[in-house]
Parts: sequence; C-alpha cells; structure tokens
Amino acid sequence: MAQKNTTRAEDYSKWYNELVYKADLAEHSDVRGCMVIKPYGYAIWEKMKDELDRRFKETGHSNAYFPLFIPKSYLSKEASHVEGFAKECAVVTHYRLKNAEDGSGIIVDPAAKLEEELIVRPTSETIIWNSYKNWIQSYRDLPILINQWANVVRWEMRTRLFLRTAEFLWQEGHTAHATKGEAIQEAEQMLDVYAEFAETCMAMPVLKGRKTESERFAGAEDTYCIEAMMQDGKALQAGTSHFLGQNFAKAFDVKYADKEGKLEYVWATSWGVSTRLMGALIMTHSDDEGLVLPPKLAPIQVVAVPIYKTESELEQISLKMAELGQQLKVKGISFKYDKDDNKRPGWKFAEYESKGVPVRLAMGPRDLENGKVEIARRDTKEKSVIDFEGVEDYIEQLLNEIQTNLLDRAKKRQFENTQRVDSYEEFKAKIDGGGFFLAHWDGTKETEALIKEETQATIRCIELDAEQENGVCMVTGKPSMYRVVMAKAY
Amino acid sequence: MAQKNTTRAEDYSKWYNELVYKADLAEHSDVRGCMVIKPYGYAIWEKMKDELDRRFKETGHSNAYFPLFIPKSYLSKEASHVEGFAKECAVVTHYRLKNAEDGSGIIVDPAAKLEEELIVRPTSETIIWNSYKNWIQSYRDLPILINQWANVVRWEMRTRLFLRTAEFLWQEGHTAHATKGEAIQEAEQMLDVYAEFAETCMAMPVLKGRKTESERFAGAEDTYCIEAMMQDGKALQAGTSHFLGQNFAKAFDVKYADKEGKLEYVWATSWGVSTRLMGALIMTHSDDEGLVLPPKLAPIQVVAVPIYKTESELEQISLKMAELGQQLKVKGISFKYDKDDNKRPGWKFAEYESKGVPVRLAMGPRDLENGKVEIARRDTKEKSVIDFEGVEDYIEQLLNEIQTNLLDRAKKRQFENTQRVDSYEEFKAKIDGGGFFLAHWDGTKETEALIKEETQATIRCIELDAEQENGVCMVTGKPSMYRVVMAKAY
Repeated sequence: MAQKNTTRAEDYSKWYNELVYKADLAEHSDVRGCMVIKPYGYAIWEKMKDELDRRFKETGHSNAYFPLFIPKSYLSKEASHVEGFAKECAVVTHYRLKNAEDGSGIIVDPAAKLEEELIVRPTSETIIWNSYKNWIQSYRDLPILINQWANVVRWEMRTRLFLRTAEFLWQEGHTAHATKGEAIQEAEQMLDVYAEFAETCMAMPVLKGRKTESERFAGAEDTYCIEAMMQDGKALQAGTSHFLGQNFAKAFDVKYADKEGKLEYVWATSWGVSTRLMGALIMTHSDDEGLVLPPKLAPIQVVAVPIYKTESELEQISLKMAELGQQLKVKGISFKYDKDDNKRPGWKFAEYESKGVPVRLAMGPRDLENGKVEIARRDTKEKSVIDFEGVEDYIEQLLNEIQTNLLDRAKKRQFENTQRVDSYEEFKAKIDGGGFFLAHWDGTKETEALIKEETQATIRCIELDAEQENGVCMVTGKPSMYRVVMAKAY
Repeated sequence: MAQKNTTRAEDYSKWYNELVYKADLAEHSDVRGCMVIKPYGYAIWEKMKDELDRRFKETGHSNAYFPLFIPKSYLSKEASHVEGFAKECAVVTHYRLKNAEDGSGIIVDPAAKLEEELIVRPTSETIIWNSYKNWIQSYRDLPILINQWANVVRWEMRTRLFLRTAEFLWQEGHTAHATKGEAIQEAEQMLDVYAEFAETCMAMPVLKGRKTESERFAGAEDTYCIEAMMQDGKALQAGTSHFLGQNFAKAFDVKYADKEGKLEYVWATSWGVSTRLMGALIMTHSDDEGLVLPPKLAPIQVVAVPIYKTESELEQISLKMAELGQQLKVKGISFKYDKDDNKRPGWKFAEYESKGVPVRLAMGPRDLENGKVEIARRDTKEKSVIDFEGVEDYIEQLLNEIQTNLLDRAKKRQFENTQRVDSYEEFKAKIDGGGFFLAHWDGTKETEALIKEETQATIRCIELDAEQENGVCMVTGKPSMYRVVMAKAY
C-alpha cells in the first residue's frame, strides 16, 4: 500500500519534498546539492523550454553556446559582480588524474595544476562579454540578441529540489545595444515575455516589478523581476531581467563606433529563468493528493484506464480508446491509454492523480454498453459520466477550462492574500501568516535591512504599475511615494 | 575586400578553420580548448538536435538530466573505464573563492577544499548507474530507456573547432535491460538511428561497423560505430553505440529480480553523438567558396536579394518577395529576404554562398517586368532564370533535389575512394593518398598496433555487413575471414 501523503497543513515543506519524489519529478543525487531530473520532471521542463524558446525567437533572439569555464580573473573585472558570485562557486584547479604510486587508487596529478584556476560558470556575463568585445566594432554590429540554454553551478549550502540546487538548468539572455533606451526596452520586453509565459502556460499570476538596490543582480543598474505567490503565502522570484548599463562593456572594454565614427561603450541586458520554475509550478497548483499540472505543460494531458473482467471486454474498450487516441492526436492532445494488466484501476487512478494528469477517463463494460465514459478532472476532482460520442470535443474544451480555472484560482488566492499595512506593528503581527504586504518604505537600505533582520521578510519588488500615493514609511515615518511589496520568500 | 579563401587543395586544414570562421559557425574562446558556438552554427546544431531527439522519442526514449559532477571514486569503480577517462579531465577541488588578504584580487579559499574531488563529467555512465541502482529492483522496472543532452569535458591537448574540443555538446543514451539480447538489439537499433539520420538529414553516407577490441569504448563489451569519409579521404567516427554487457551493473551492483524472483545483473548500453557532427557536416559537402548545407539542416533554406536602382523598384520587388515568403512559409520552407541597403548584392551573394544557403534568388527590374526570377543553387552553383509564377513549387522540388544530389555526390566519392588492398607494401604506398582500404587482418592487437605505428592508419571498423572471404592478413599472412576498413582518421 502507498503511504499516506503528508498534507500541506501538516508540514508544507515535507509535503513539497514528498510530492517531488512521488510524482517522479526529481531526486537528490549523491553529489552534494546536485539533483537528478527524472524523465517525467524533465518532460515538463522540456515543455517550458519549448514555450520560452519560441517566445525568445519570436522577439528576435538566437541561441548560441559559450564555455562552461570562466578564468578566475574574468570574474574580478566587474567589481560588484565578483562580490556577488565569487563566494559560492566550483573551482577547477587540475586537469588530470593518475594512478597513485602506492596502488591505492586514482589521485589528482599534482603536475597537472592549471596556471589560472577555472570557475564553473555561475552565470555567463563575463565570458560572454569577453567574446562580444571581438564581435562589436560598429553600430552596424548592434544589437546582439543572444540566448543560451545551459547548466550553471552556485555552491549553495542549503539546497532544495528545483528551488535551490548547486547545479541547475537555465537560460540566460545576453544582449548588447547602441543606446540606453534600447537596452532598457529590451530588459522590459523580456520581463513581459516571462510574465506572459507564467500566466499563459504555467497558469501562475505574477507581479512585475523592480528590485531594490540591495536585491539587485551583482553588476546590474536595474533588476526587473516577476514574483509569484506560493500556496503557503511565501513569495518566489520566478524570473529576472537586468538592465546592466555599461558596466560589463566598461569592464571588458567593449565600444562601438556610432554613425559619426565616435566610440561609445555598449549598453547591455541579461535575463534568465531556471529549473526553479518547476518548484514554482508545483507550489502554485498542487494539492494533498499530489501534483496538479496546467494542461499546457502536462506531458500527458489525458489518460484513460480500462475497467474490465474479461478479455473480450478489454478488447472492446481498447478499440474505443484507439479510436479516441486518433481523434485526440489530430487535435494535438497527448493521450495515454494504460491497459497494464499488472496494476489495478484504483492504483492507476492514484498514480495519475499524484502525477497531475489533467484529465482521466475510465471506461467499464456498462459504459461500453451505454455509449458512455467516465471523465474526471484533476483540478477540482469532479467526475461525470458523459456520452462517448463527441468526447474528444468535450476534452478539448475541458482542458481549456482547467487551464483557465487554475489561473483564476491562483489569482484569487493571490488577491485574497495581499493586504495593505500601514503600521510596522501590524506588519510584524501578520507577516508570519504569509502573503504579500503592500507597505510604505522610506527607500533606504538601513530600513530594508532592519525589516529583514526583524521579520525575515524582504522587499520583493516595487511594482512597475505601482500607483503614486503620498505616505510615510511604516518603520521610520519618513515620506514615501509608493507602496512596495513585502513578503517572506523562497 | 574579402580575403581570398584558402582552397582545399592548398591546405585542407587551413581551409576548414577559415571556413568555420567565415561562415560564422564557431570560434576559439580564451579558455583553453573551449569553443564558442555562434548563433549560425548553433542553429544548425539545433536542427540536428531536433531531428535526433524526435528519432529517440519515436524509439521509446525519454530525456532526463544527471549531475555535471562525478565523485572521483565513481570513476574507479569500473576498471577499464577509469583507464580510459581518468587521464584527461577537469578536476574541481574547491568550492569557494575569497579576497586575498594582501588585496591582490581573489584567490581560491584554502579552507574550502572538497573532501572528495569532483570530476567534470567526461561521460556519464558512472553517475547514471549510481542512480539506476536505486531505480531498478524488479524486471518490471526494465527496460530503462533514457537520453541526456549535455555538455561534457575531456581535457584534450590538441583541439580543433567542433572536431576535438575540451568541452563539447552531445547526447548520451543510457539504457538498462533484463536480457543480453535486448541490450544488443538496443545498441544496434541506435546505430541504425544514427546511420539513418546521417544519410537522411546530413546527406552523409556512413559505414556501419564494429570497433576492434583496442578501439572500443572504455568499459564496453562491443562498440558499434558509424564512419564517414571526409573530402580529404580521411575517416571520421560520427557516432558510437556501445553494448556494455553487465560491466556497469557489476561495478555499481545493480541487480533485478526476474519473474521467478531470482536476482540477476542488469544489461546496459550507451550511445552518443556530439557537436563533432558539425565538423563532419562541414567536411562532407563544403567547397572552396565556403559552407554547403543540405537543405534539411539549413537554418535559412532560401535567401532572396533584390537588385534595384530606385525606391519604387525596391518596393515592387519587396511586394513580390513578401508574397513568395508567405507561400514558402505554408510549405514549411525557411526564407530570408535581405534588403539591407548597406550592402551591395555582390557582397550578399558571397556572404550567403559562404554560409551555405542552399537556394538563392535574385530579382531585378527586368525580371520584374518579365515575371521572372533568377535562381541559383549552392551545391552545383548553377543559375537559371525562371517564371516567378509557381516558383514556390520549383523551390520545393529544388530543395529535395539538392538534398539528394549532396548525398549522391558524397556516396560517389566514398565509393571511388574505397579500395581493396592485399599487400602491405601496396597499402603503405597508397595510404597517404587517403580513402578507405579494405584489407585482411589477422585479428591481433599486435598487428593492429604495428599498422598504426608504421602508417598512422587505424582499423576504423569491421563492417556489420562484411562478407565472409577466406584471405590472409596483409601484414602477417595469417588466415583472415573478413576484410576490415582501414584509414587515417580525424
């Protein structure tokens, strides 16, 4: 028998970890902090990748690939960048192993020490701008609009599957522009792409905003972000887009000749989302029975289970299902018919429930006789018995409905768990209950640090569409023009 | 003015390097042995990936992702594997940098030394079988059919763009089976997939064969390979598929319970192709003017260049081209209309020629008047003027014709440069001229090593469909039942 799941109410964190294992999404590897993404989890990531990649290409970007290794000295070229990234990285110091002379096994060959250590990329600004230097001479070479799908490594001490791992998969866009305005527009455009993807495909509503100075990417002039609310009321930064100003152009001496032949430093952006989105997806929709997937990202959208006693019954049901499979294929809907004889229907129901398959069909002898099929939706767990004739159209519509319902449900939760607070006392009293808090802040690092220290909450972002509102900082009483979004976060 | 290209006849190796740069495919990075794959090169690789990935999925495989790092001790678990891969690898020894106390910059933090060094994967058998150990208990868990798209690192001393780089991109399939027969069938199936892909998409004929014992993958019982002939007559190993026997199952203690409950070691395969295929593609078809691409892998299949004096002429040509673009889009043919005003038509012609665009159109005022268009094919460099009406059908057919012609041409070259030799003297006299040599070999490592030492030629493979033929080894005169394929190789 399957063990009872830990519920969200019992232990949210344990619920998450169990779900990742039970839905067969990923697991810890023996290598500290590194995960194995299992086929079912990877299939969801592939769907995300395809959707994002199409959007990047539609907005004029091309993919390319830059080296995994970054010479140590490159990291130091941009002063704040090295502060942000040097602390937690994997360092390659040697390039050969050899047999130990005492026969005890293989050891690092001390003769094969690198002159300069190589860092396994934590992000690729430095290695990429070192290339762009040679690619850019004139305004005609701009803009450069490149994206890279890659693995990166940040040596995290405390790791959680998908949310924070030493190695993770991501995409990183790196663009170069002739003007400041164009670069800002690019950074904003990519934020919009991320937000649209999050809502349309992940059914996950997000706030679009700007990070405060202390939460900015190391080396950025401005960091835009999308922030989502998880079911426990905590915020999750789901994607960032950085306006890098001329910082990397100056660090790597990248100039272009404008139309008048005058040399100018190039303007830059970078933007990225990672396998962390898998964690966001899980924690936005899933329930105590397991994963809940929006149809647009589900590797299997519809599963059908036959219920039978005799071979002849199975045969007839299988014929019907083959027919349906064809119809769904035409509609581009992925369908699995599970007639595995080793497992009972009840076991299969639980299995596909835990894996978040949006629509489940079941057909037994009586259904067959009456021209019916049972249909269950994963999001609401509603079941109904409908005519088999025309079920493919019903399914198509139901998948759209599930997609919409998941987004609406998440929006409603976000709305209900977002509140305005005007006093720091009230904030401190409520912050442990989770949710987003719209509060006035005086704009100083000191106040921001104090809030973080006293409550563990951070300023998630200053919303791009924040309304101007004369107020006073809830901590210091100093004047403030906008409310910011505060929350505890992953 | 553009510099004159080095020709193949003048210096084949220089021709190759220049072409990779001029066609904007890739370049050397500052990181020793690592390359930057530029957008145009990466777009070709993406097409290869898509084609291969579809074939892997059609044959029942799923993608997954395993850690970049392999604990040093894992490599040692399979005895011949460590011999093959320990010598040339990037070793991570530390996980943190810090500011030097003397303010001289950042240094490796000696306090952050790893207890066990991590190897950047040169291939993933060990880390994957360490996971499979936990995934496999019973025959019901088999087969496992997984593929991974990843970067790998082998610290090569002499590198060449695409052909041999320290870091490269590849896919590695790793499968687990209950029986020996099934594993062998899988290894053979994947070899067939590679061969079919090479011929159908790359228009590159290949020999399918088995490696000799000394050329086998470290840890394999049998290595199957596809071997292609480059234009200089040298062989290039384009893909390998390994029957691993129970070697990794034994090394990682992976057993399954069969239907009777008896514990048995699992059987394994692994198979891979890499960005090396880009080198193979280039050297199979390209000419002294630059890259020649088979239409199925061309990021731009058709380019059109307007030739005009007045704005009104440009406008009319552009209208026609927009119309054509629509028609080609419907057919799934990628089309670029280059009306960049900064470059002359002649410059553009040379540019697209060097980038291997299969079909080039040009339209001037007279063509417009006569309802004609000039069409040039990259493979034969033939030009003709044809009716604009219906040109989309003409193009569709022409692309197929080019694809076929490239394969035929390569097949013909391979056929003409393959010969039987029966005396070692003759072999030694002819081997520097390049090509494949079918010769009898006595099956011993000693003879194989002698041939390699004296001629630099290797036994590329024993063809799977080699005919039995009683003969004698050309070196030792000992009996031999089959001819093997010998050549100098990349």
